[in-house]
Amino acid sequence: MEKLTVVKVGGKIVEDEESLQQLLRDFSAIEGAKVLVHGGGRSATKIAAELGIESTMIGGRRVTDAEMLKVVTMVYGGLVNKNIVARLQACGINALGLTGADMNVMLSHKRPLKKVKMDDGTEQMVDFGFVGDVDKANGEMLCKLIAEGVVPVMTPLTHDGAGNLLNTNADTIASKVACALAPYFDVTLTYCFEKKGVLRDADDDDSVIPVITEQDFADYQKSGVISGGMIPKLENAFDAIHKGVETVVITRSDNIDGQCGTKIKQF
Amino acid sequence: MEKLTVVKVGGKIVEDEESLQQLLRDFSAIEGAKVLVHGGGRSATKIAAELGIESTMIGGRRVTDAEMLKVVTMVYGGLVNKNIVARLQACGINALGLTGADMNVMLSHKRPLKKVKMDDGTEQMVDFGFVGDVDKANGEMLCKLIAEGVVPVMTPLTHDGAGNLLNTNADTIASKVACALAPYFDVTLTYCFEKKGVLRDADDDDSVIPVITEQDFADYQKSGVISGGMIPKLENAFDAIHKGVETVVITRSDNIDGQCGTKIKQF
Repeated sequence: MEKLTVVKVGGKIVEDEESLQQLLRDFSAIEGAKVLVHGGGRSATKIAAELGIESTMIGGRRVTDAEMLKVVTMVYGGLVNKNIVARLQACGINALGLTGADMNVMLSHKRPLKKVKMDDGTEQMVDFGFVGDVDKANGEMLCKLIAEGVVPVMTPLTHDGAGNLLNTNADTIASKVACALAPYFDVTLTYCFEKKGVLRDADDDDSVIPVITEQDFADYQKSGVISGGMIPKLENAFDAIHKGVETVVITRSDNIDGQCGTKIKQF
Repeated sequence: MEKLTVVKVGGKIVEDEESLQQLLRDFSAIEGAKVLVHGGGRSATKIAAELGIESTMIGGRRVTDAEMLKVVTMVYGGLVNKNIVARLQACGINALGLTGADMNVMLSHKRPLKKVKMDDGTEQMVDFGFVGDVDKANGEMLCKLIAEGVVPVMTPLTHDGAGNLLNTNADTIASKVACALAPYFDVTLTYCFEKKGVLRDADDDDSVIPVITEQDFADYQKSGVISGGMIPKLENAFDAIHKGVETVVITRSDNIDGQCGTKIKQF
């Protein structure tokens, strides 16, 4: 099967000119079919603040009321996405920016009230507002675009099919896209963030765990080695492995080819 | 040849919930292939003001400095475009939001200093900033999308191929898209705005001029019947007629099918 690489990069990487430059260079150099999924949370928080809108995060996830939905639609769908698309075009990559609504590539439903573990250890039912949990990624439509040499650049917005955009976690989007393309390609999913991989010791940048199996993941959670925002990232990674994605790597954005970092394995 | 309709709607129509509803209904009902081109100037001005950025208009055109480019990228490419796309999907239309950078559908160059007639009648050299004059609309790529049943929803942003987005007049985008599709389709281009057509008397909404030829246009400009922002709109309309677009109509958004309003004819 033909190789395809899905790269997910966090907001920090695409919002800083120097790291964006490097990302564009490295992403352009990846051979074969590819998809870029980006975040943009820091820009959204900044623009929201300039508009006098307060950002509320619970358990590392943004609460998206109607005003915040406008902000993320502007920032993710417009500012961040379209600048990446224009920059990739300049690198000779035929990029196409997509929300889930575009060509109906990602359908979701509004998240119901959800039990969340708060910072103080208590559990609470939280209304995240206009946040979408993904129902379906349209692999067939993405395949048609990729067959035309198009490189989808996906922004963390989905739609509910009833006319509403919904804010959706970019790690989840990357996992769902990778799964939807797995029947057609030999898919590598690379999660890029600021560390070299999943660290055994948060204070030691060189303590990268080279391989994490499901059993390791359970053990690391119990012992507290893996906690916080790394847990949903790894859940998304394992979900991809379960659904036919060949390789999943968590690494730093300068290892976009997935040669270094933490490899996720079922066994 | 198969029929294709390009509809251009101004910001006012897509920014008001009631008129947007009607537009979505009417646009969805158009049979055959279609493209929607939208503006969004009022929203851009409003968001810019909320961010403390002043909007400068010269000769009816927005001056786009670096900060304003960010605003129009957010508002046109994100807020307005993606909401229309999501709403059209809910109407069963497989919409895809596009800037000129997406799939390289519209290439432009930064406008050089331009001589502009000011409100006081004097002429002045004006730097419009990050404004793009269109070099090429990619009819072939648009055709491929349309052949897949996709309905392009074009936002007034283009790119220069060197990584920069540029703000581009939506009337011009509509004309260039219609021309680029004219070799493949029997194209109707409908410019929708708040009047029933080009008026003989600006104060009489029923004084619609049913047909304007190039000779009429010259005469109406001399006599002052046609002036201001209507002049570039008609120039775009005649440009389309010259380049193979079958029918061009200027009308109100409730006549989206182009049956009423002002028809543009070469002779």
